[in-house]
Amino acid sequence: MDALDRFYSVIPAGGIGSRLWPLSRADAPKFLHDLTGSGTTLLRATWDRLLPMCGPDRIMVVTGRAHRAAVEDQLPALEDLNVVLESEPKDSSAAIGLAAAILHHRDPDVIIGSFAADHVINDVRSFHRAVGEAVAAAEAGYIATIGITPTEPAIGFGYIRSGAELKIDGAPSALGVQSFVEKPKLAVAKKYLADGHYLWNAGMFISRADLLLKQLGESEPELLEGLLELAAAWDTSHRGSTVDRIWPRLKKIAIDYTVAEPAGKAGLMAVIPGDFDWSDVGDFAAIGKLHANGRKSDLTILGENARVLSDASSGVVVSQSGRLISLIGVKDIVVVDTPDALLVTTSANAQRVKSVVDAIKLSGQSDVL
Amino acid sequence: MDALDRFYSVIPAGGIGSRLWPLSRADAPKFLHDLTGSGTTLLRATWDRLLPMCGPDRIMVVTGRAHRAAVEDQLPALEDLNVVLESEPKDSSAAIGLAAAILHHRDPDVIIGSFAADHVINDVRSFHRAVGEAVAAAEAGYIATIGITPTEPAIGFGYIRSGAELKIDGAPSALGVQSFVEKPKLAVAKKYLADGHYLWNAGMFISRADLLLKQLGESEPELLEGLLELAAAWDTSHRGSTVDRIWPRLKKIAIDYTVAEPAGKAGLMAVIPGDFDWSDVGDFAAIGKLHANGRKSDLTILGENARVLSDASSGVVVSQSGRLISLIGVKDIVVVDTPDALLVTTSANAQRVKSVVDAIKLSGQSDVL
Repeated sequence: MDALDRFYSVIPAGGIGSRLWPLSRADAPKFLHDLTGSGTTLLRATWDRLLPMCGPDRIMVVTGRAHRAAVEDQLPALEDLNVVLESEPKDSSAAIGLAAAILHHRDPDVIIGSFAADHVINDVRSFHRAVGEAVAAAEAGYIATIGITPTEPAIGFGYIRSGAELKIDGAPSALGVQSFVEKPKLAVAKKYLADGHYLWNAGMFISRADLLLKQLGESEPELLEGLLELAAAWDTSHRGSTVDRIWPRLKKIAIDYTVAEPAGKAGLMAVIPGDFDWSDVGDFAAIGKLHANGRKSDLTILGENARVLSDASSGVVVSQSGRLISLIGVKDIVVVDTPDALLVTTSANAQRVKSVVDAIKLSGQSDVL
Repeated sequence: MDALDRFYSVIPAGGIGSRLWPLSRADAPKFLHDLTGSGTTLLRATWDRLLPMCGPDRIMVVTGRAHRAAVEDQLPALEDLNVVLESEPKDSSAAIGLAAAILHHRDPDVIIGSFAADHVINDVRSFHRAVGEAVAAAEAGYIATIGITPTEPAIGFGYIRSGAELKIDGAPSALGVQSFVEKPKLAVAKKYLADGHYLWNAGMFISRADLLLKQLGESEPELLEGLLELAAAWDTSHRGSTVDRIWPRLKKIAIDYTVAEPAGKAGLMAVIPGDFDWSDVGDFAAIGKLHANGRKSDLTILGENARVLSDASSGVVVSQSGRLISLIGVKDIVVVDTPDALLVTTSANAQRVKSVVDAIKLSGQSDVL
């Protein structure tokens, strides 16, 4: 059986996207928004991108109970069997690990790939080619990732230092992983860009489920034990009680720490360089960049029925309130207009939005979060 | 009878204040707002400032029919006899001229002073002293104005070039008026400031009503004829029909052109230098200045129940919608948040707000004006 026929996509649809507040918030997380002006949500675009590789019956979505209806509304072809609901967020090791454990319990030979629900990729053909190589690398016994070839010295992403060619059948561009490095300072990011061996860590992991679980168990044996118990009960009448008993106790930890980094050190990681466009749409400046294609003078407007009058202004306007928005002489501005909260900042300050969300929490005005 | 006992104040309460859109608008003009954070509207503050000089029975308000209820609500002591309603706006010659004609018809010896409903003066003692001198100059046969001693090279006001001392009893600081000059360019404004003979034209005119009407008649005989006919019918049962017949036909023209400038040329004007603080609160930058007292780092917040979170931001926020407003890293910003319209600009662009109002008119979205 061809490796691709055993390949499942897992879409963890969890993060709120605090840097996109007040657009993204607890009851309207980032993945449920159309941030590209394409007319589809990021989640739906992710589904559409994976569909040609997996078909509708081999895409699993892990999301919060509160988002079940919205997710199913966005993805009518998503099968009940492939909906995994979290009673509370437990970070990516638990989310992806549970999906891996369930799928492995159903079919021990399964290969899974996890792809964020809220990233943007337009060059689908190159994406499929990279995923195809990653699946081949997974079949060959690696935990594969796709590292994006950087186009600028970004400081908002982690980087992957690639190593020697791995010469894997079906994965001609696969390289070893020397190390994962955290979000760098600008000067360091510039060195990475010039060096040529560094790739952006886009958080895509493709692996045999059994290998991923084994690696997870070596890092966090208790977490693995819980996930395996959940998986064993998942397709039985004990699912509910098992979830209630086990899920709240699971450790919250990112899969980068439990799987990717230790596997990298063990020489088990492969990276496929991805030469396609990619954005994690991490803040409002990224939204502007996605739309403006580098033209600094542009004003990006998001929102149905947006009524915006702009005079000598540029930046990003998100209109959700239906009000008339008038801008005069404001450059690189970010205006996010929602029915109960308004944000005014600049592209240069876009990363600081998260700290305001934290301040709002502290101020006891969480009704707008 | 002492001149001050024949002194009436007239408050033309007409202008919308387009540069303060979307706060000021047709159904909520500038004079009905509290722009100083004092807790009172500009109209009420004007009334309170004039009250010690005139008493409640000698203050007349000229306003639009649509604003009658709001004006009477603000000024419960305003007498019915002293409410003059315009069926449509006809500029200051008609508004002040009608008040002068009505008061002159009731008492031929009356002295009137006209004071805008939407200016700010805090030093009331100095204001009263200047008005007292202006009344003495009016009694001596001049049309008097109060010129504000400039504190900066403002380009938003017209200037008065003062002349020789007039040596009027009771008006020791009265000077002749050499000329009125239009709003200058910055370089010219700087020369005016350095010169020392130039004063800001604050649009205050104090004169015997008969002299003011005579001057108006020399400039615009048809306008005067209409006003006198209105005044004769005003306190009779024919008021309504006379207004309906005459008011719509009256010429729209500012009193500067019909009275002040020609009287200046004829040597009939006197100017009393006013050494008090004064602001016409002409735009949002002026609001910021009023509050910040020159401190550039300040954020001025106007609005009951305003919910504003500011991080490294300065400027002016007007909150009328009750929404949470969050500012991050925006300097000298102007954010005006109303239920149906939002304005984002900067202090430096504050004067351009009027052009946006014009653009909105053209775009057919006048519902927000």
